[in-house]
Amino acid sequence: MLKNLLEPKSIAVIGASEDVSKPGGRLTKNILTKGFNGNLYLVNPKGGMIQGVKAYPSIPELPEAPDLALIGVPAKFVRASLEELAAIGSKIVVVLSAGFGELGPEGKKEEKLLAEIATKHGILLLGPNCSGIMTYAHASKFTGAAFNLVRGGIDFISGSGATVDFLAEHAMRRGLTFNSFLTVGNSAQSGVPDIMEIYDDGYGPDSSKIMITYQESIVNPQKFLKAARSLNKKGCLVAGIKAGTTQAGSRAAASHTGAMATNDTAVQALFDKAGVIRVSSRMELVDVAMILQCVKGRTDGKRIAIVTDAGGPGVMLADELNRQGFEVPPYNERIRQRLAEVLPPGAGLNNPADCLPSINGPVMEKVLNILMEEVKDDYDFIVFMMGDSGLSDNWEIYRVLDDAMHKSPIPIIPSMVSVLSSEVPLRKFREVGGCYFEDEVYLARALSRVVNRPKIYEPESGAVGYDRVKISHLMDDQHGALTPQVTREVLQAAGVRFPGQIELTDKAGLKNVPFAFPWVLKVMGPLHKSDVGGVRVNINNLSDAEKTWDELMKIKDASGVLVQQMVKGTEVIIGANREEGYGHLVAFGLGGIYTEALKDVQFALAPLGKEEAGRMIQSIRSLALLKGVRGEPGMDLETLQDILVRIGLLVTDFPSIRELDLNPVKGYGKDIFTVDARIIVD
Amino acid sequence: MLKNLLEPKSIAVIGASEDVSKPGGRLTKNILTKGFNGNLYLVNPKGGMIQGVKAYPSIPELPEAPDLALIGVPAKFVRASLEELAAIGSKIVVVLSAGFGELGPEGKKEEKLLAEIATKHGILLLGPNCSGIMTYAHASKFTGAAFNLVRGGIDFISGSGATVDFLAEHAMRRGLTFNSFLTVGNSAQSGVPDIMEIYDDGYGPDSSKIMITYQESIVNPQKFLKAARSLNKKGCLVAGIKAGTTQAGSRAAASHTGAMATNDTAVQALFDKAGVIRVSSRMELVDVAMILQCVKGRTDGKRIAIVTDAGGPGVMLADELNRQGFEVPPYNERIRQRLAEVLPPGAGLNNPADCLPSINGPVMEKVLNILMEEVKDDYDFIVFMMGDSGLSDNWEIYRVLDDAMHKSPIPIIPSMVSVLSSEVPLRKFREVGGCYFEDEVYLARALSRVVNRPKIYEPESGAVGYDRVKISHLMDDQHGALTPQVTREVLQAAGVRFPGQIELTDKAGLKNVPFAFPWVLKVMGPLHKSDVGGVRVNINNLSDAEKTWDELMKIKDASGVLVQQMVKGTEVIIGANREEGYGHLVAFGLGGIYTEALKDVQFALAPLGKEEAGRMIQSIRSLALLKGVRGEPGMDLETLQDILVRIGLLVTDFPSIRELDLNPVKGYGKDIFTVDARIIVD
Repeated sequence: MLKNLLEPKSIAVIGASEDVSKPGGRLTKNILTKGFNGNLYLVNPKGGMIQGVKAYPSIPELPEAPDLALIGVPAKFVRASLEELAAIGSKIVVVLSAGFGELGPEGKKEEKLLAEIATKHGILLLGPNCSGIMTYAHASKFTGAAFNLVRGGIDFISGSGATVDFLAEHAMRRGLTFNSFLTVGNSAQSGVPDIMEIYDDGYGPDSSKIMITYQESIVNPQKFLKAARSLNKKGCLVAGIKAGTTQAGSRAAASHTGAMATNDTAVQALFDKAGVIRVSSRMELVDVAMILQCVKGRTDGKRIAIVTDAGGPGVMLADELNRQGFEVPPYNERIRQRLAEVLPPGAGLNNPADCLPSINGPVMEKVLNILMEEVKDDYDFIVFMMGDSGLSDNWEIYRVLDDAMHKSPIPIIPSMVSVLSSEVPLRKFREVGGCYFEDEVYLARALSRVVNRPKIYEPESGAVGYDRVKISHLMDDQHGALTPQVTREVLQAAGVRFPGQIELTDKAGLKNVPFAFPWVLKVMGPLHKSDVGGVRVNINNLSDAEKTWDELMKIKDASGVLVQQMVKGTEVIIGANREEGYGHLVAFGLGGIYTEALKDVQFALAPLGKEEAGRMIQSIRSLALLKGVRGEPGMDLETLQDILVRIGLLVTDFPSIRELDLNPVKGYGKDIFTVDARIIVD
Repeated sequence: MLKNLLEPKSIAVIGASEDVSKPGGRLTKNILTKGFNGNLYLVNPKGGMIQGVKAYPSIPELPEAPDLALIGVPAKFVRASLEELAAIGSKIVVVLSAGFGELGPEGKKEEKLLAEIATKHGILLLGPNCSGIMTYAHASKFTGAAFNLVRGGIDFISGSGATVDFLAEHAMRRGLTFNSFLTVGNSAQSGVPDIMEIYDDGYGPDSSKIMITYQESIVNPQKFLKAARSLNKKGCLVAGIKAGTTQAGSRAAASHTGAMATNDTAVQALFDKAGVIRVSSRMELVDVAMILQCVKGRTDGKRIAIVTDAGGPGVMLADELNRQGFEVPPYNERIRQRLAEVLPPGAGLNNPADCLPSINGPVMEKVLNILMEEVKDDYDFIVFMMGDSGLSDNWEIYRVLDDAMHKSPIPIIPSMVSVLSSEVPLRKFREVGGCYFEDEVYLARALSRVVNRPKIYEPESGAVGYDRVKISHLMDDQHGALTPQVTREVLQAAGVRFPGQIELTDKAGLKNVPFAFPWVLKVMGPLHKSDVGGVRVNINNLSDAEKTWDELMKIKDASGVLVQQMVKGTEVIIGANREEGYGHLVAFGLGGIYTEALKDVQFALAPLGKEEAGRMIQSIRSLALLKGVRGEPGMDLETLQDILVRIGLLVTDFPSIRELDLNPVKGYGKDIFTVDARIIVD
């Protein structure tokens, strides 16, 4: 399937036209201009020649089923064309025609029909209202003919055609190369995740190592998750935008492609779990892709070596790198000495290496050679920053840079700042395959996004003492809110600890309570225990307990005493909510005011890996409080991690759980107990 | 002075040369290329003609003292040239020559000498190691001749010459216009704040309304503050970068211009108090300047109307606007109806108005007219977003836009996204004075920076009960840490409340204690009160107090009892630290763990205005806790504000205070007391 998308042996244009202001005409022109090596079939009721190519009067007259068929006829004729294509055995159909779901319910109904027909015949349907596909091998897209795609470049799968063009113009101005553009239009049948799955299924050694995506709604979150994780493991990093996440944005998205508002917390958790670098603007997406193109798979490391020809931008770069958590370690004595031998007095030797504006090609070659020889063990990336002072030929310098980028043991990431005065040498640099940033601060931010990208974790498949069978038995036939007793039993069967408790009707039983002081004693029998003074906390020894027993039993209707372990310590909350399509979102935060007033909560999609749960905990702002302040012992983070993993397992195994709340979870060190809990199932 | 900088009637180039690869030669060429209307005097020992202009063999031979003299001779001859210029009466001298402070201590000494000579003769000295000045009237700068400046554009004052060129290239590519570039090089005598002061002193009705600055060190924070605030009040907004604020950045800055590390908290507080919009990259500075150029002084408002020709970018824009706190209110029924009359089916009518890619000039004119008529009362800004679909002539659309930008009742801010395919129409748009963003998300962020810019507050000059004379008397001859007693008296004289306390030697005195329960009773006499059980808290009534009195007086060495009002409630800390050159940095934060573990503290430079103090309080992350959670009353924010104002007054009136700490400040509602305090003076 992927091969037929990227390199079809035959393409049919249904609705081809001489008039290039019509989609069908523009599309034909683009395919012809770009040059397509296979068979191009044009279909137009009038037949004859269109743009110099023979046109068939109808689909049934085509000599073969095209690998790829594109429909550009008016909306009312689309269904018939699709059916005819199905009849001759077409398997990929792209509907460029507009006039469907974006116009209202009528159009929505019609595009649903198209999807049903396509699915029935095993056809992959893109669109309607879609601008097409463009790859290194063909330009089946009715906008943006100016683009020149390169095999092995970046794949861009987009829910918005305009976004492809607008992003590509910026990207290409800076030398980013693309393997394919694929737009899904209204996603009547197939959305971005479906296409990602096709790219993943067809992934091979020559496939692109970088994929970028734009979505306004995630039509199938689970498919997105699976495809992105799989691509990631095969060595293809994915970055993307999910727009329409605010009130104004989702209203705009609704009128654009009919996308529905989704909970952005779930979207973020999805991207994180999928290992997809999430950004919110075209420029940021270009920047992240630029880093990925420069580093060629070497995506980790914190130590940066800087070469520049100007002080100020070097300072701003060093500042931003520091802010983003990178290090800019000073060059050692030997590097400084070697640089001093080739650079003039006044040059900076200390990282940044400030080569001064008088730098030329031959000297830059020496500087880069010194760095490539010296920095490979102690640095992870070289950032190269160059303006045009007019004092030397910048193309000489870029040529040296291009050579170094190919042979350097660590990635070199360039920022070219003289966008006007270096216009000609920069064009030459792009022509030899060079790519670059135009601002050093954005470079640092994009590098940080890549290095600090979400990692893929393998979820735990079980845990010691986690008793799936028992839970299953307990959950049988449950609906709505579980009783406190069943809640407790379910969670205990999942390995979650509760404070000890025992119901006594005999005072002598106090001697055999199987847990330590302090205790809480609660009278059994009376309905409103607190109102009648029936709850006593902080019982620290047996004699106090016995005295309290006597007092409690004097209360009217007292039938016995509930003895509970009294838990002190820090409070956290752990919860899980089901988000349709996404699975369960597990939440972790500090209890009480921290969650209520400070919104200091972290989320991740279940099921969780141990490290993943650990990252949730480490990411709360109030982590210091969790670890213990002012001599308090705090909570053992591994124990919390273990509880999170168990909750992730529980909601994954029992998706009927709609809501789950452990609040508070309380304790010190490893002695962490769930004091109160609530589970709602449906 | 400013007039002579911007429009000198005569310019002298000392070290003029035929060789344009030398600064003196390049500079001469730039001045000639740009065209200078006054007298240009070249000086070169060889005399003769240089670049077609007569050269004088020496400075004394010049026919008059030039308004502006630029020195481009080798470093060792600079001092002599300066002295000769001083002798003929020059008042502005720019030293372009490098080879001074940036090379080490020797050069530092030499440039200090230059500064002394200049100051002695009342000369404004720029440089050394400075790339010069460029204005709408002359191009006295040895780099960047390509720039075309426009009277009334933006003033850019920079501590880095390369940063000017690099920023300007980006800015001009997008149509930003500049009034002047001024670089200060090593700032031997005059730095960015000094130049700002000159621009402020010479500010007139024709002056620029926008100033941008780049600094690696703030040579004179107080001058920066004064000039920026004064410019702001005159209608000129200032935005700027202070680089070199991280460890790596300040090392880079040190090797660039010898800037020293400064406390970034103080820098941020300085920018805030000065009303200067602070950014950290060239691009962000261009973006903020772009907003200011578009909005022509209308810098407030939250409600955005959007016009676009493409869905996706409209969604990303609406998202970012929402995230930045803007509103994108839906168009009302009348606007929707009027838009529907001119736009094709499928167009979005609901804000964003999505005009679809088929939009052309005449239709866009109608759309903009509708919006200009309808939105002026309900919206504050129009954001206009346009790509190039190839389906119509974009220049037609830009021409309509240009016209609308001139006559619209509310500012129109454009984002032009097809940077390659619209190259020609965009050039035309810039030629008629148009300017634009290239990314809608960056537009939203920059607009937010402008709308949410730091405001200028007038500090309070006094407060009820603030007794400057008494404090002055108390502070007389004080050094080091003040005693608890003096600390209390000083703060009380400033109007800060302490909990009541009274020393009693007679039990009967308990009846007349002038403050309410609860009390703390502390035995007087014994050295380590706590160790001997001499501190009793939570005394709630007189009989308990009398009983406790008896117990305390039984303690060995007891000589009496200190009765203190016991304060309950929320805890905050208030402090002040002197930062050399900046004045005092006043700090406010929630007490205890919030300050220690969560670093939730806000800072502002003293003296404070009431609203300014209010903003500090409102800006802490834990504000909800301060206001009271779970039914607790919280603290009265105005009372806290009042304490902050008093502390600001105190440290401003008594700059010998090096450190001041009120920790904790405690209470509920308006009853807020300083429980413990510390003042160190020098």
